[in-house]
Amino acid sequence: MKQPTPVDDFTRKTASQVVYQIFPERFAIGGGLSSEAKLAQPAYDLPGAVKRGWDESTLNQPWGQQFYGGDLDGIADKLDYLTDLGVTGVYLTPVFSAPSNHKYDATDFFSIDPMFGGEAALKRLLAALHSRGMTLTLDAVLNHVSDQHPWFLAAQAGDATMRDWFTFRADGSYLCWQDYGLMPELNLANPTVRDVLYRQPRSLVQHWLAQGIDNWRFDVAQDVGIQVAQEMAACVGRNYPEAGLLGELNGYSGAWFQAGGGFHGMMNYWYRTATLAWLAGEIDAVQMNRSLQDAREGYGLNGLLCSWNMLSSHDTPRLITTVGSVEKARLALLMQLTMPGVPLIYYGEEIGMEGGADPDCRRPMRWNEAEWNLAQRDWVKQLIAIRQANPALQYGDVTVLGDRLAGNALVFLRHTNIAGEAALVIVNLADTPLETRLLLPYSHWYDGVPLRDALGNAGEARMQAGSVQLAIPPRSAAVYEAVEPYKNYTFFKPRNLR
Amino acid sequence: MKQPTPVDDFTRKTASQVVYQIFPERFAIGGGLSSEAKLAQPAYDLPGAVKRGWDESTLNQPWGQQFYGGDLDGIADKLDYLTDLGVTGVYLTPVFSAPSNHKYDATDFFSIDPMFGGEAALKRLLAALHSRGMTLTLDAVLNHVSDQHPWFLAAQAGDATMRDWFTFRADGSYLCWQDYGLMPELNLANPTVRDVLYRQPRSLVQHWLAQGIDNWRFDVAQDVGIQVAQEMAACVGRNYPEAGLLGELNGYSGAWFQAGGGFHGMMNYWYRTATLAWLAGEIDAVQMNRSLQDAREGYGLNGLLCSWNMLSSHDTPRLITTVGSVEKARLALLMQLTMPGVPLIYYGEEIGMEGGADPDCRRPMRWNEAEWNLAQRDWVKQLIAIRQANPALQYGDVTVLGDRLAGNALVFLRHTNIAGEAALVIVNLADTPLETRLLLPYSHWYDGVPLRDALGNAGEARMQAGSVQLAIPPRSAAVYEAVEPYKNYTFFKPRNLR
Repeated sequence: MKQPTPVDDFTRKTASQVVYQIFPERFAIGGGLSSEAKLAQPAYDLPGAVKRGWDESTLNQPWGQQFYGGDLDGIADKLDYLTDLGVTGVYLTPVFSAPSNHKYDATDFFSIDPMFGGEAALKRLLAALHSRGMTLTLDAVLNHVSDQHPWFLAAQAGDATMRDWFTFRADGSYLCWQDYGLMPELNLANPTVRDVLYRQPRSLVQHWLAQGIDNWRFDVAQDVGIQVAQEMAACVGRNYPEAGLLGELNGYSGAWFQAGGGFHGMMNYWYRTATLAWLAGEIDAVQMNRSLQDAREGYGLNGLLCSWNMLSSHDTPRLITTVGSVEKARLALLMQLTMPGVPLIYYGEEIGMEGGADPDCRRPMRWNEAEWNLAQRDWVKQLIAIRQANPALQYGDVTVLGDRLAGNALVFLRHTNIAGEAALVIVNLADTPLETRLLLPYSHWYDGVPLRDALGNAGEARMQAGSVQLAIPPRSAAVYEAVEPYKNYTFFKPRNLR
Repeated sequence: MKQPTPVDDFTRKTASQVVYQIFPERFAIGGGLSSEAKLAQPAYDLPGAVKRGWDESTLNQPWGQQFYGGDLDGIADKLDYLTDLGVTGVYLTPVFSAPSNHKYDATDFFSIDPMFGGEAALKRLLAALHSRGMTLTLDAVLNHVSDQHPWFLAAQAGDATMRDWFTFRADGSYLCWQDYGLMPELNLANPTVRDVLYRQPRSLVQHWLAQGIDNWRFDVAQDVGIQVAQEMAACVGRNYPEAGLLGELNGYSGAWFQAGGGFHGMMNYWYRTATLAWLAGEIDAVQMNRSLQDAREGYGLNGLLCSWNMLSSHDTPRLITTVGSVEKARLALLMQLTMPGVPLIYYGEEIGMEGGADPDCRRPMRWNEAEWNLAQRDWVKQLIAIRQANPALQYGDVTVLGDRLAGNALVFLRHTNIAGEAALVIVNLADTPLETRLLLPYSHWYDGVPLRDALGNAGEARMQAGSVQLAIPPRSAAVYEAVEPYKNYTFFKPRNLR
């Protein structure tokens, strides 16, 4: 086992977060308004807009044009709920002016959409979050804008300067994101575009940091590119060294970190793929364990810890719908809260909301507690509390051990550079108990140290000269920690350290 | 496969040793005295002492107060026996004045217990060992002393200075090793205590090095701490750069080496845990192979090579009693003599002595050859001879290969920086032959090189373009080496090196 890689202060701060993802149009309406009342506001007077009641289905409606009325004040109203859950930060999908409900088709990067309450609502939300020590992450789309964006309209009208902000072909057609004509791609090779997006102090990225937001998530990183990420990190980092910059990539992100100097973290869809495939029986425990090892190796520890662990998002079916059982959802959440990286909890997963692919995964949040899976909510709260009580689970390194065991278990140790800060996580997916001796190459849990499962599921264990006898029930998990006074044993007796 | 890490001269010298552990009270009595005659000496006139005949049981007697009469002259008398076995160094559990038979409860660190013959006997033993080119390792307890030690008696009597050598609580009680009242803990945070133990030229550690002993083994490293080990290594190393410093830790020692600058080696109980668990069927070959890999990674090559490989000690049941069969004991010994590190053979294991947990594992040595397992003794002699004839087995790096094979085998290659110095070790624990093609990522055994099992167990093999076809009988081992003239082939032909 290798020595834990040192973790920098930025990573430590970032990895201590538990982030809650909100799709603002669907979380809550400020001031207790009904959908009907909210949607009567002029902001919704758009051609093609379909106004829906909060409890109505998202299915069989125009995809981007159905509205329920959620807004930023609605989020601010619900911060007690989030605090109670234990989350420490909020990530919002785009909030800038745009005609759709998802707002990935901006018409103005420098204003908050009036549907969401405008800039005043953002200030209220920021103040409310910061007063609780919580962070706000916004979503920036650098790759494309709406075809109704004034920049694009000017380009189409023949403005020679603006045409070079996009990429027009000889036949007058233009490059679009994944060929969606509604989303023309910005020409990031144009220095002026870069200036406006992130290089200038008044650019999109720097403007909103100046307004007080904490972090950025960048859409479609594969289309933005590593070089842009590197340049952005350099120039934004000079002015806002505390701001987190995170890219979306639907897959393995190793090359992004190996290139160096780009985003601090990535949306770790890699984990999601591995976790869901393992729970579905599509891969076995060897691949599951190795996928974690691959992430550790390729992302590096700081990169991995700053990446988001996610099981679902506005772009995927919801967890319970994907895994098909509450039992598997519990194990998935356990993995999300213990594997290295920032847990990103998609709104409503904590109460067991269902939903298939977009738009079904974007149902309005359920606020009637009668609809909640209270056991799942308690489970998430418990997992967050365990994580937040143990620095190793927040920013510890990871040593994968499960690929050396027969059976069907994910096993890994989290451990910081502080002697004794550790947690041994075991997920036994098999239908039989995992009963085995495990050699545990961790010096600070020395012979005789008692270990206790923070989940209260598996029995107490005890270190035996570098090993531990495991007995984990079927389809269940354990998070073993040393029992006090061994937990924070300082290697060695404090009086010998003076 | 990585290039072997360079090994320094100190490591090379250390790793070339085969050390024999003696519990002096139980090995031999000098001058051929009977126990009765020896125990009549005044040194044994202690309250509570129970005098035993050499052939009597250790069981059902006062644990630390039963005496058989072994001493240092007895060891010196038996050096022909040790030389014949092939060992090159002797490690003695404590020999300083102390009331018990084990002498971990010192009353004076600066005198040899009269039971063991006093300082004169130590000088005789040292001279005898050194005349044969053998080394002596003594055992230092830095963590605690006897409650009869004058330092502690003075502290208890109220001497203000001496009270700070220990740790008294407000209620007058004091810190003891694992709460044994007989062993009050020294206060290593007190600079004067450090001075007396190891910092001053006349300290415990430096005094005995000045008297000619070669190395130190330090008791209960986890209680002494890395900082003390680092400081000690620095100040002792200045005056005695050739002295080996080794710590006891019952488990995985990676963190000790990763901290840097402390002990040169550790007692590698980690190996013992893995070996015995594997032989017992508690772990499979994947964990066995990975445990060796873990040690290589965490200890580093120099640390691993300077650590002691041990299968038993005065603190554990004896090998044959633990593994339950001669056949498994043979495999365990093979592993001990071929895995990287210094083999530490507990006295009597080479003749198959039995014994359960302390005090049963501390039976007097059997000197009547009729009681010996001669086949086991020949096996140990053969293994030592094979090891000492092949530098790769002494101080070569290790590349673990067995975790990539189906079956139940430990497979690893030892190889130095000298082209062709190598050994391929295979332990097939299965009840069926290990018949497989093994890809062997070692350039210096090129296509066509014939390999021969130094144990004469498995048939001759031949390299086939980077691979070898193995056929290892059930429950047996092989140590493949290149056959002359390939054995020391210098990659490339000598005439091309000029």
